Amino acid sequence: MSYVKPFEKSEFVGRVRDVKQRMDEAGFDLIICQDPANMAWLTGFDSWSFYTPQAVLVHLEEETAIWFGRAQDAKSAHITTDLPAHNIISFSEPLVHHPTRHPFDEMCDLIRSRGWATARVGVELDAHYYTARAHQHLVNGLPDARLSDNQGLVNWARIVKSDAELRYMREAGRIVTDSMNTAISRLRPGTRQYEVIADVYHTQITGYDHKFGDYTGLCPLIQVGEGTNTPHLTWADDPLPESGLVVMEIGAARRHYNCPLTRTMHIGAPPEAVSRLADVIVEGGDVALDAAKPGVTCEEVEALWQGVLKRNGYSKDSRVGYSIGINYPPDWGERTASLRPGDTTVLEAGMCFHFQSGVWLEDFGAAISEPFVVTESGGERLTHAARELIVIDV
Amino acid sequence: MSYVKPFEKSEFVGRVRDVKQRMDEAGFDLIICQDPANMAWLTGFDSWSFYTPQAVLVHLEEETAIWFGRAQDAKSAHITTDLPAHNIISFSEPLVHHPTRHPFDEMCDLIRSRGWATARVGVELDAHYYTARAHQHLVNGLPDARLSDNQGLVNWARIVKSDAELRYMREAGRIVTDSMNTAISRLRPGTRQYEVIADVYHTQITGYDHKFGDYTGLCPLIQVGEGTNTPHLTWADDPLPESGLVVMEIGAARRHYNCPLTRTMHIGAPPEAVSRLADVIVEGGDVALDAAKPGVTCEEVEALWQGVLKRNGYSKDSRVGYSIGINYPPDWGERTASLRPGDTTVLEAGMCFHFQSGVWLEDFGAAISEPFVVTESGGERLTHAARELIVIDV
Repeated sequence: MSYVKPFEKSEFVGRVRDVKQRMDEAGFDLIICQDPANMAWLTGFDSWSFYTPQAVLVHLEEETAIWFGRAQDAKSAHITTDLPAHNIISFSEPLVHHPTRHPFDEMCDLIRSRGWATARVGVELDAHYYTARAHQHLVNGLPDARLSDNQGLVNWARIVKSDAELRYMREAGRIVTDSMNTAISRLRPGTRQYEVIADVYHTQITGYDHKFGDYTGLCPLIQVGEGTNTPHLTWADDPLPESGLVVMEIGAARRHYNCPLTRTMHIGAPPEAVSRLADVIVEGGDVALDAAKPGVTCEEVEALWQGVLKRNGYSKDSRVGYSIGINYPPDWGERTASLRPGDTTVLEAGMCFHFQSGVWLEDFGAAISEPFVVTESGGERLTHAARELIVIDV
Repeated sequence: MSYVKPFEKSEFVGRVRDVKQRMDEAGFDLIICQDPANMAWLTGFDSWSFYTPQAVLVHLEEETAIWFGRAQDAKSAHITTDLPAHNIISFSEPLVHHPTRHPFDEMCDLIRSRGWATARVGVELDAHYYTARAHQHLVNGLPDARLSDNQGLVNWARIVKSDAELRYMREAGRIVTDSMNTAISRLRPGTRQYEVIADVYHTQITGYDHKFGDYTGLCPLIQVGEGTNTPHLTWADDPLPESGLVVMEIGAARRHYNCPLTRTMHIGAPPEAVSRLADVIVEGGDVALDAAKPGVTCEEVEALWQGVLKRNGYSKDSRVGYSIGINYPPDWGERTASLRPGDTTVLEAGMCFHFQSGVWLEDFGAAISEPFVVTESGGERLTHAARELIVIDV
């Protein structure tokens, strides 16, 4: 087996260096990262093992990161990372789902054994897999340490993408374009929802030119008719109707860099209300992407979009976009900057967002989203999907 | 849209009644369930929305469960559950990823507004999506309540499956059998790993006779050659070799009831060491499944398996199985009973396990697993996959 790492070693070295500088500024000696995207971004570690407690640790005075996890997954760490063997540490197997002990008890042993018992420790207090119980075991096991939330320190370090990362984002954009086009080609009256999704998965994984796809942060989503008023339903057995609205949100991932895309289709001639909403969504997106240049804030971009909606008699309560990049289930958002009121994050070239311009009305919804990268000339689209309400002639 | 609920309303009513009895015995007035499998099992709620704080609450004196989550997902709760509208509660959108406030602040408001401020509250302290931060907001927001870990109360309530649930488990067993056979038919020298996986996904979702598949708790896993010494790697671009070992672990899910399956294949004539290990794994599995009858304990089943291994000069550190049923990413284990030393859970008819008989040696590994249901005559297999080292003639 010849595992091909997603980046040069120097890229990981640079990331750890950057993170240490952020730690120093934020007053942390040590951070503990359980978010699988942060683990992968810092070290390259890649394995569907995040259902078990595991983490990457970075200490200011330790040259490389440290991987901590289950013994059977430590071998994956040896294969997928450049970490030295002495920084790949596994916990005792009986601690898996143990009623009173926890794998992080042994992480505390590790931290003490390295002489870091009194460190200022930053944990990911709100990371998906960092459970309340895991935190209690760290707090109890490190009574002399000062534990606090690192406020997504590594998530924020990820927000501006390198050229190598942008290559994966664009490749994912190509695959998600192909996946959406696969779906569109299958949306015909009588076709079952799951038949469309089976083909979407096939295209997502096959990719193009040996650039295969990874599993995505969210599964493919499809809503039909009345179900289009809520965004996160999954597929069913129902045959597609002779006429009606379909909204699909699909992702694609290259080396775990996720590019999501949403499109609205109408089987048969669309009602005026649907066409009108779609036109406004496209117009609002165009205005927002034109403005998404370095120096502009997230809330300024959102306000431009909201202005177009308002002028046309619509509104959208939820944020209209969020930062994207490397990610693992259950999400493909980076949980940092959002395009919404109050978010004063200043855009920089190389940031990537999913402009998720879904508007859900009482009876139906529509969404025509755009993943984009911030450039000097505005938001550059990462996909080539048709940017309109897609009408399926029947 | 005509959403077909997975169970009769009476099934959900019975589950909530059973859970209330367990709550009463354990000394809880209220439980808060964030585990998506527990949310689905209690109410039918089904949506890929678990990347956002959400929960199902059960109070001893409230007839039905209460759904709490994001406004855009509340519509999914109206579609997929029978809950009355007054028990589908959404939080304010600006609380999503808010730096200081949290959706569970409004859950505390809800709990107080119902007069439950001093309740004995059981939380899922170690559930995947119940973060340390979520817990802090509950603790701070309910200063007069007595919060403690409910120790997987609902997970344990799920362990014995009803006939209706077993039907889904068997259907998932059929789909995973088909998915594994798809993989086997594609494993040929030169085929790329991702090409195999793309076809596996297609079969997983397509199902049979309109019994489509849902997304599974884990993605399909494939390990080749040296990579077979670690279980959770995912696919790559590598062409399959002219000769070598392949281990695949695949799931299938019917209405989110997951049936996992692992098989070991050898492209070309297998080395003696591989055949021998595979024979022992099959023998050990046969002995264990024969014994898996009501009244036997989990550790007794494991000991039988371990005896066969030992007699043949092998050993396995990790548990050899775990309870399965309804589940959502990132896991398909129920996090309750495990087939391992020290687990004295007594088997009952209707419990389902994944007998995960993987043995990972230094240089390679092999696994021939069996999902099964406990019956009076022993463990009844849920799949029909060939139970042997599968040799791919080339």
